[in-house]
Amino acid sequence: MNFDDLLRNPSSWLQGTGPEADVVISSRIRLARNLADFPFIRQCTHTDRKGIESQIKQQLLDQPFFAESTFIDVSELSKLERQLLVERQLISQELSKTEGARSVAIAKQEAFSLMINEEDHLRIQVMESGFNLKETWDRINELDDHLEERLTYAFHEKFGYLTACPTNVGTGMRVSVMLHLPALTMTDQVDKVFRSLQEINLVVRGLYGEGSQSMGDLFQISNQLTLGKTEEELLAQVKEVVTEIIAFERKAREHLLLERKRELSDRASRAIGILSSAHTITSEETMDLLSSLRMGIYLNLVTQMKIPDINRIFLETQPAHLQKIYGGELDTYDRNTERAQYLQRYLHKISRSSDSSQN
Amino acid sequence: MNFDDLLRNPSSWLQGTGPEADVVISSRIRLARNLADFPFIRQCTHTDRKGIESQIKQQLLDQPFFAESTFIDVSELSKLERQLLVERQLISQELSKTEGARSVAIAKQEAFSLMINEEDHLRIQVMESGFNLKETWDRINELDDHLEERLTYAFHEKFGYLTACPTNVGTGMRVSVMLHLPALTMTDQVDKVFRSLQEINLVVRGLYGEGSQSMGDLFQISNQLTLGKTEEELLAQVKEVVTEIIAFERKAREHLLLERKRELSDRASRAIGILSSAHTITSEETMDLLSSLRMGIYLNLVTQMKIPDINRIFLETQPAHLQKIYGGELDTYDRNTERAQYLQRYLHKISRSSDSSQN
Repeated sequence: MNFDDLLRNPSSWLQGTGPEADVVISSRIRLARNLADFPFIRQCTHTDRKGIESQIKQQLLDQPFFAESTFIDVSELSKLERQLLVERQLISQELSKTEGARSVAIAKQEAFSLMINEEDHLRIQVMESGFNLKETWDRINELDDHLEERLTYAFHEKFGYLTACPTNVGTGMRVSVMLHLPALTMTDQVDKVFRSLQEINLVVRGLYGEGSQSMGDLFQISNQLTLGKTEEELLAQVKEVVTEIIAFERKAREHLLLERKRELSDRASRAIGILSSAHTITSEETMDLLSSLRMGIYLNLVTQMKIPDINRIFLETQPAHLQKIYGGELDTYDRNTERAQYLQRYLHKISRSSDSSQN
Repeated sequence: MNFDDLLRNPSSWLQGTGPEADVVISSRIRLARNLADFPFIRQCTHTDRKGIESQIKQQLLDQPFFAESTFIDVSELSKLERQLLVERQLISQELSKTEGARSVAIAKQEAFSLMINEEDHLRIQVMESGFNLKETWDRINELDDHLEERLTYAFHEKFGYLTACPTNVGTGMRVSVMLHLPALTMTDQVDKVFRSLQEINLVVRGLYGEGSQSMGDLFQISNQLTLGKTEEELLAQVKEVVTEIIAFERKAREHLLLERKRELSDRASRAIGILSSAHTITSEETMDLLSSLRMGIYLNLVTQMKIPDINRIFLETQPAHLQKIYGGELDTYDRNTERAQYLQRYLHKISRSSDSSQN
């Protein structure tokens, strides 16, 4: 795997072209699967883990749907490279941090990823730009069918797919939608919305899944349970709820635009001012400023920047990406300086090109 | 009096060319004097106040040292015009807000000002750029001699000059030095310094004298008492103390430059970023940002702007100046917008001229 290729080819879901992209960053589905011939990961010996890896690899490598995909041995990656894959949401924090044989297969343009030996033997993931559960489901369902033709999954007639953690038994499916909710946050309504989700077994997480903090007004909403409902029922539930939240967020933005337009444009304009002048800046502050800009662009208060700029800066200012672009390891202090320099270069380039297009 | 002239001709003390200008903005002396023929202001009738005004005016108008000075009838000024004179420190808040006949004489380039019917019949003021007590004293002393040739002051052999408030009896002199102490503020040492001043009867005030808050790390240090010491002794005491504070502040700056240089340059650079991008900004935030820039310029961390820019922006973003430049009255909300627009214009002009000088 060439990491430079990853950097040069942004994931398609980052283009920001999907449906309802003003509020929904991405739609993601993952399926948890286990091979019938091996014990669950927690009971696995080193040999078992190796066996799982090689069985999956052998069965898939020559398959047409797998052409142009790459297998990466995660245990051989540096900490920085693993973190880079986490930042792109191609692997989980857990796969990054655990010990032992484990790997990930990544399709061209990050169309899907397969984590091997995470909590389950296999975790299949498909992500789409915007609010696009139908297409995401169709793609992952087709991929899962292809895999099931070659692999024998642990499956129980009554319970469905068997998984290491009971909460994943059944469909083994988690549907996650990444939402950008700056207006609900500004108007202190976000907690109220999230409290109502708990009652219907949906959970809210930060950017990088379980245990991570919310930053930049980004929230992941996922289903909690996978048992006792069909995939279609789970998808329908998430779709219904997210559709409502999108409407709430848009209403809050309209209200802000009507009542506090000057404050919104001030925030957005200052965000550009700070991003292009800071000499040191944390990842968290960067995300907060990008949040103001993202909303500003959708409300036509910002014209100098476009959504793909925001997404690219968002990804490339995260610690591992930043260090990969820089070409070496940096401690937090130096990362904050390097991040500021990256931002100055990027925004200078934008302002140059907008200057020349005006002439 | 033409207020446009005032706007076009910045006070000489704002050029920032005086001694120790890295820490001392200005040195100011005022003398409180009363005419022997009239009761103190608080006992004055309307006729008395008129009489004081006309006696002073009559005696001074044809004097050579008074050529090119202007008498302004403060009671006929609009609130905005009075506030403008306060912002330039040509009149006090008290003279601005009190009722009845009162006026101010302002010399060319604001070399001196005479307030008539403030707390005393006459308040003479001379201000110099930087730490320049000797020259300030020489000039006000000469001016006072000229005045005393023409006017009969209330004077007591034993007590000295008699004044409305007992704290001014004696020399009637208040020496004030305006200090910029960003490094002592950043390192939490400013309170300690000021506590030690109280013990030696020096007082610390904000920008606009008694009761005003400190903003933009600016502090006025003045003598409290005027009785029992000669003018020279008072001057010597203020000089000694301020010299020490200057040394403290410089030491704190050196320390910051050594230990927190990146933070200083980050602050200064962000200040320019925010000042040139905000769509709404308060006077207080503007002053705080200018404070970072002022220190940044003296520490060679900022090259795009010069001290006269800082002083000019400082003065012209204050409420009355801003409205005078705008050409009409504005409420606080609109002033904050207008201030942001003024700043964008000013900084855009600077960045244009520094761009073209680089080509």
